[in-house]
Amino acid sequence: MRWSLLLIVGAGLLRSTPLANAQSAPERVAPPQSMPIPAVVQSNEERLRFNGEFTVAIPKYTDARLQRAITRALGRLETLSGLPFKTAAAPQSGADSKGGPALIVEVQAAGDTVQSVQENESYTLDVSAQQSVLKAATVVGALRGLATLLQLAETDAQGLFLRGGHIEDHPRFPWRGLLIDVCRHFEPVEVIKRNLDAMSVVKLNVFHWHLSEDQGFRVESKKFPKLHELGSDGDFYTQQQVREIVEYARDRGIRVVPEFDMPGHATAWFVAYPQYASGPGPYQIERSFGIFNPAFDPTREEVYKFLDRFIGEMAPLFPDAYWHVGGDESNGKQWDANPRIAEFKKRHGLKDNAALQAYFNQRLLKILQKHGKKMIGWDEILHPDLPKDVVVQSWRGQQSLVAAAKQGYRGVLSAGYYLDHMKSAAEHYWVDPLPPGNALDQAPVAGVLGGEACLWGEFVTPETIDSRLWPRAAAVAERLWSQPEIRDVDDMYRRLDTVSLQLESAGAMHLSGPDRILRQLAGSEQIGPVREIMRLSEPLDFGQRARLHQTQMTPMSGLLDAATPDSAAARRVSAMVAMLFKEPAKRDAMVESLRGEFRKWREFPSQVSGMVSQRPRLRDVEGIAAQLGELGALGEETLGYAAKGERVQKSWTDEKLALLQEVAKPRGTLKVAVIPAMRALVSGVSGGLNQERSVSGH
Amino acid sequence: MRWSLLLIVGAGLLRSTPLANAQSAPERVAPPQSMPIPAVVQSNEERLRFNGEFTVAIPKYTDARLQRAITRALGRLETLSGLPFKTAAAPQSGADSKGGPALIVEVQAAGDTVQSVQENESYTLDVSAQQSVLKAATVVGALRGLATLLQLAETDAQGLFLRGGHIEDHPRFPWRGLLIDVCRHFEPVEVIKRNLDAMSVVKLNVFHWHLSEDQGFRVESKKFPKLHELGSDGDFYTQQQVREIVEYARDRGIRVVPEFDMPGHATAWFVAYPQYASGPGPYQIERSFGIFNPAFDPTREEVYKFLDRFIGEMAPLFPDAYWHVGGDESNGKQWDANPRIAEFKKRHGLKDNAALQAYFNQRLLKILQKHGKKMIGWDEILHPDLPKDVVVQSWRGQQSLVAAAKQGYRGVLSAGYYLDHMKSAAEHYWVDPLPPGNALDQAPVAGVLGGEACLWGEFVTPETIDSRLWPRAAAVAERLWSQPEIRDVDDMYRRLDTVSLQLESAGAMHLSGPDRILRQLAGSEQIGPVREIMRLSEPLDFGQRARLHQTQMTPMSGLLDAATPDSAAARRVSAMVAMLFKEPAKRDAMVESLRGEFRKWREFPSQVSGMVSQRPRLRDVEGIAAQLGELGALGEETLGYAAKGERVQKSWTDEKLALLQEVAKPRGTLKVAVIPAMRALVSGVSGGLNQERSVSGH
Repeated sequence: MRWSLLLIVGAGLLRSTPLANAQSAPERVAPPQSMPIPAVVQSNEERLRFNGEFTVAIPKYTDARLQRAITRALGRLETLSGLPFKTAAAPQSGADSKGGPALIVEVQAAGDTVQSVQENESYTLDVSAQQSVLKAATVVGALRGLATLLQLAETDAQGLFLRGGHIEDHPRFPWRGLLIDVCRHFEPVEVIKRNLDAMSVVKLNVFHWHLSEDQGFRVESKKFPKLHELGSDGDFYTQQQVREIVEYARDRGIRVVPEFDMPGHATAWFVAYPQYASGPGPYQIERSFGIFNPAFDPTREEVYKFLDRFIGEMAPLFPDAYWHVGGDESNGKQWDANPRIAEFKKRHGLKDNAALQAYFNQRLLKILQKHGKKMIGWDEILHPDLPKDVVVQSWRGQQSLVAAAKQGYRGVLSAGYYLDHMKSAAEHYWVDPLPPGNALDQAPVAGVLGGEACLWGEFVTPETIDSRLWPRAAAVAERLWSQPEIRDVDDMYRRLDTVSLQLESAGAMHLSGPDRILRQLAGSEQIGPVREIMRLSEPLDFGQRARLHQTQMTPMSGLLDAATPDSAAARRVSAMVAMLFKEPAKRDAMVESLRGEFRKWREFPSQVSGMVSQRPRLRDVEGIAAQLGELGALGEETLGYAAKGERVQKSWTDEKLALLQEVAKPRGTLKVAVIPAMRALVSGVSGGLNQERSVSGH
Repeated sequence: MRWSLLLIVGAGLLRSTPLANAQSAPERVAPPQSMPIPAVVQSNEERLRFNGEFTVAIPKYTDARLQRAITRALGRLETLSGLPFKTAAAPQSGADSKGGPALIVEVQAAGDTVQSVQENESYTLDVSAQQSVLKAATVVGALRGLATLLQLAETDAQGLFLRGGHIEDHPRFPWRGLLIDVCRHFEPVEVIKRNLDAMSVVKLNVFHWHLSEDQGFRVESKKFPKLHELGSDGDFYTQQQVREIVEYARDRGIRVVPEFDMPGHATAWFVAYPQYASGPGPYQIERSFGIFNPAFDPTREEVYKFLDRFIGEMAPLFPDAYWHVGGDESNGKQWDANPRIAEFKKRHGLKDNAALQAYFNQRLLKILQKHGKKMIGWDEILHPDLPKDVVVQSWRGQQSLVAAAKQGYRGVLSAGYYLDHMKSAAEHYWVDPLPPGNALDQAPVAGVLGGEACLWGEFVTPETIDSRLWPRAAAVAERLWSQPEIRDVDDMYRRLDTVSLQLESAGAMHLSGPDRILRQLAGSEQIGPVREIMRLSEPLDFGQRARLHQTQMTPMSGLLDAATPDSAAARRVSAMVAMLFKEPAKRDAMVESLRGEFRKWREFPSQVSGMVSQRPRLRDVEGIAAQLGELGALGEETLGYAAKGERVQKSWTDEKLALLQEVAKPRGTLKVAVIPAMRALVSGVSGGLNQERSVSGH
């Protein structure tokens, strides 16, 4: 077997026919468990085995960070193998064990003292039956190589082995981030840590920590203790915890970029300091979600003095070169309502609120520079008055990234990467910060630093965060690391299932978290059928959920919180349907499998019947079970035609597609996830499969 | 419905016929979800409902600890109901909301500044359709009442409600502990915290923190930093973390008793300070498990100076009145081998090593007293030379508790409560520190303070600790809190299933943890049948596992670690078999249910067939599947006789019982858990059901 370099396939073709891909080029097989796919992979038939004598040599540069990373990697291999290795807890420098070491880590130098955007993350990895050799210019490069090495671990009848091969790897983009909003809902230290561990599995390298908002101020300030005392409900990070997390992230080659959002999204600051707002107080922590009026007053010198002192206190806590100023969605209402501010604008020739915000940002920039920081902010900070070394994070669309790059700014893409929108991994996977053939090709490529997946916290709690992040963020991670021609969605999903387990092994709770919620709702005994029904369901998306008017005080412990997007079970049904029509040789087998599936669906209504009378919070499961029961009946009927290869009447098709449209509507907080599969099935017997190519299911 | 007071039933009878109980007195129904059962419970038909307007009044004493506890309790009710309550995050004092508050918490006073053994934990709780009233003398009493209140929460078609009734409650024993050994394997802060939360659900009130051992020294010492630097592999609690955990425990009404085991079990100290050992160094952290020779040298003044300084540093960190000195299993080998120590014994007239240890303890006691601490230690510290205010913790058996009490010492029972032995909850449940009719009845009852469940850490990791603790520790908690006549095992198990979910809701990972390990071993797709097979299996017990010679370095990530003792699934099969023979009216239904069960077992071998070739670590599952396949066939054959009410030949019975004896043997690291059920089935058709009354399955 050879892990060939993936061929470049026209993105346009791929975009419109994702399912067709794997079939049309079956010889392109990626490393079975790697995500992101490395730049160059050549496999061989060798297998490096573990016999309890696995030794490590570090013949060149080493330091405590590298040692800890190797120790962690060996620990994971031990966990996987079930064997204790005879290595010291801290691996030895130098190589002189009998038969040679099983892993040689050759690093040239430490790399940046504070990891920078320019950090060299490249590495090479060679695995033979005798040993594995990892080479990197920096420790961070070695961390990436160790992450890849762990993904080469597989088992066969003889146990664990590393798959042999030659890998040369480097990231496509230097900025590969994940934003976690800890303001709408707080996320404790251990939640952040386990998700940093998960990030390192897929080589994400920026933790964008959204720390202040209308709904909460989340960092201890010793200079201004009222900020966290009055603005956090007691849910904040102590400075010691901030240091701990920054250190933990650095150990995993992850930069930490703090965001203190201003001038808008700032209500929580004003609970303690109403005098810095543009409108009269008092203020309370905002409990609802949306865009609110409170904003810093850019016209008062005390505000800048305050921010200078505050940033001066915080800057050493966050060693990263960048400081995120937010800048989004400042609606200007408080500014418009304040005559003094109107007067100020007139006096300074600031023609609109955008100009006023630019003025604010210029002042802010000077403060940041004084404290050794570079500025990054959302789209809205983009203004001709700002210098070119400001980085723009685009949440509004690729257009603004293009616009920024054309003006000479550097940008980071987040539009299309909002994980809290509950879209499929495939939808995010298609979004490319620098798509082939896009207008950006003409803009300076260096202007596009990369992207960031975002998890906004309106509907995310410590109990649900993992299942909202993973495994979908891994698809974004691959988009940002791997070469642009890596675009085969089926192959991505195939690997995602394995990566999902790697993420769990690293500590993520995305697979067990939903079960914990379901057990509370359904009980240990009845969780079985409820779990099965939930696997074929999806939650309302962000916009639909927003219409429920939940607040920060709403307990997020219901079916909607146990439901996960991008149902793998539904994808499997879709794959069976596709196979049914495309591979005549497999038709009987697929008919059989699907029949079994549909039979199961038909049993769901009776399996959950009556449950709701004792457990009313399961109501939506009952609704979905009823829908699946109907779909099961429809499926069986349709299979009857498919088995005989019969075409159906157009009137039948129209009727069934109308039925599907009806069933596609949410039942309370849940949606059936198998509508695309059922549409494909109905269309298939109608001779119209080609109409149905939706990847996402929405 | 009335939750009547449980009748006193002779313990002897119960002990031999636990299964007969529920049948013989079906009218005795405990509160459906309470554990431990309160001292007095009178239910009524009223239901206190939650409509989003749940308010709290605290008309008498209040403080931050009480407020936090109420806030936590409301949070749990919100989570259960899915409704946000319109209460402030910190509940208000005074009651004047319209219609009155839904919860009134009347507390007399704070209670002890540092919670003591004498702390008043009693409370009363009255729930009507209008409101609930909790009264307690102390905040700790209120915490216990809040724990009970949460256990009254149930759902019906209209949603969440609290079951109405009158409860008067107080603990039978004042010392209800849980020992966690964090030395053989370290347990991080968040693991300790979530298990403190679980402890509070079942009213355990002492966290016995086993902090030093041959295999690790786990607390930061600023005076002697080499202790944790060299003795912990970097896995230790900082002093800040100790304070945090002590505070967290106090918030939940849990005392923290630290144990620094000496003179034996002390190797990890000597890595840094070989000069305080009785034999020549150097020493390394011990990786194996067992009894080792290194012991403090009781003959040298430097040792006492060192301990004085060390205890002086630690004493303020652990505010509890008690300090656990360990004292167990000091084998005296280093003492015997050291001529200077032999000489010392002779000079001081110490006739044996027990006397020398008593000398050491007397010196240690003076140091403890100097630092304001009382002494507690294991059995071995018991010696006529020690004063009567020393507390003895009995691990060797109830006899030593009796002996201690007779000599006027106070004692805490741990013999019979070793959770790491992987026995059933029932086995622990039977063990009573003060069993009716026992010799202890003659000893001063005040001498028996209570008991402690122990989780020794040889085979326990952060990934497995929860499933080794819960839900079984809840049975011990009930034994120590509830009145002695609460001994109905079936009823205990019925409630344990619900309490298990409460524990999960409080944060324990015992239900999801095993799944996490299984997924890594079997993959997401194949976990289904593997999980089913594992539910009918049990792990090797402690003694059997000890023979595998695993060490601290052995990864604990295999089937043995995913397996849980006291299979609930096996208990259900046992219950069906019992019903089959005892209730003729249900015979056909039971035959049908059991037939379905046995059919499932027969399919197991084919369901896991071939899995092992890719996943050799699943080997024991294949073995168990084969056994279950055989048992399924045996079950079907036996049911044939049972269905017809036929008696079988003795030769048939003998043959089948021999087969069961064979199948009962472990397959690798696992054991089939359904042997007792199958024996009962075979014996049942042989007319010999009465022979089969084993509770535990072993």
